[in-house]
Amino acid sequence: MDNDTLKFNENELLWGQLIMTNTLLQRARELELAGADMSLIQAMVLYALKISPEPMTPGKLAKILYREPHSMSALIGRMEKQGLVETKHDLVPKNLVRVVLTARGEEAFQRQRTANAVINLTSRLTKEERDTLSSCAGKLRVWAIELIRQMTPGPYD
Amino acid sequence: MDNDTLKFNENELLWGQLIMTNTLLQRARELELAGADMSLIQAMVLYALKISPEPMTPGKLAKILYREPHSMSALIGRMEKQGLVETKHDLVPKNLVRVVLTARGEEAFQRQRTANAVINLTSRLTKEERDTLSSCAGKLRVWAIELIRQMTPGPYD
Repeated sequence: MDNDTLKFNENELLWGQLIMTNTLLQRARELELAGADMSLIQAMVLYALKISPEPMTPGKLAKILYREPHSMSALIGRMEKQGLVETKHDLVPKNLVRVVLTARGEEAFQRQRTANAVINLTSRLTKEERDTLSSCAGKLRVWAIELIRQMTPGPYD
Repeated sequence: MDNDTLKFNENELLWGQLIMTNTLLQRARELELAGADMSLIQAMVLYALKISPEPMTPGKLAKILYREPHSMSALIGRMEKQGLVETKHDLVPKNLVRVVLTARGEEAFQRQRTANAVINLTSRLTKEERDTLSSCAGKLRVWAIELIRQMTPGPYD
């Protein structure tokens, strides 16, 4: 192997660090949520349902959590079986499905909020570090959405 | 819904931002890699094989990429069928499998490196922002590993 001739540039090195950090944080959060009998994506759906000011459809959930519509539908189906969400057909047009939290889903949402050692890790950073992290994350989101739009004209417009 | 009484604390808000940023960056990178006929995890395996100074086994790959051993073995199997890697049985003990890049894997590695619009997004941040991002990421990795160790005594020691 020609490791000697392989030089990563600054962006590649930072990307590798970010990927690894995310992988580790996600793994830690998944282990923590497993203790609350939940997966990361399920927790994300509960959050989205909890904070949305407007009715949520599987399509909207797929869009805001950036998942494929078919995997979101399958996930909603599993969560409905577990009694965490209910689907209602009271929107106009009638073929739209409205996803709502059940009392059990509400309880699960509260339970995962108290399992928060991973989420609280950022409290060990300084206020200045947290502010920079938040502002960089905001910029990267805007730029990533730009690139996604360029690569998939349509779905994210 | 009692959205009025739902208040997220600073850590929860930052966590939400980081999760969303990662989801978007990963989705953008996946779209970019799809153009190079590759998935994100495949690209990560190629990187790991490329930069490792020592022989790589499926077990080591699973460990450094924080995947389950059985999914890593399945992934290696698929990549071998695609001609990107080869498995060799020349280590001691004999039951250890050594995973190596093929010429085609090498070519795929170089191809995904040139599809780098997503990886280059961080170049739009200031040098100071990149430094803070890198240092925060480093601290979060250390703390996440600590938590993972506490939650799974054994495998990550």
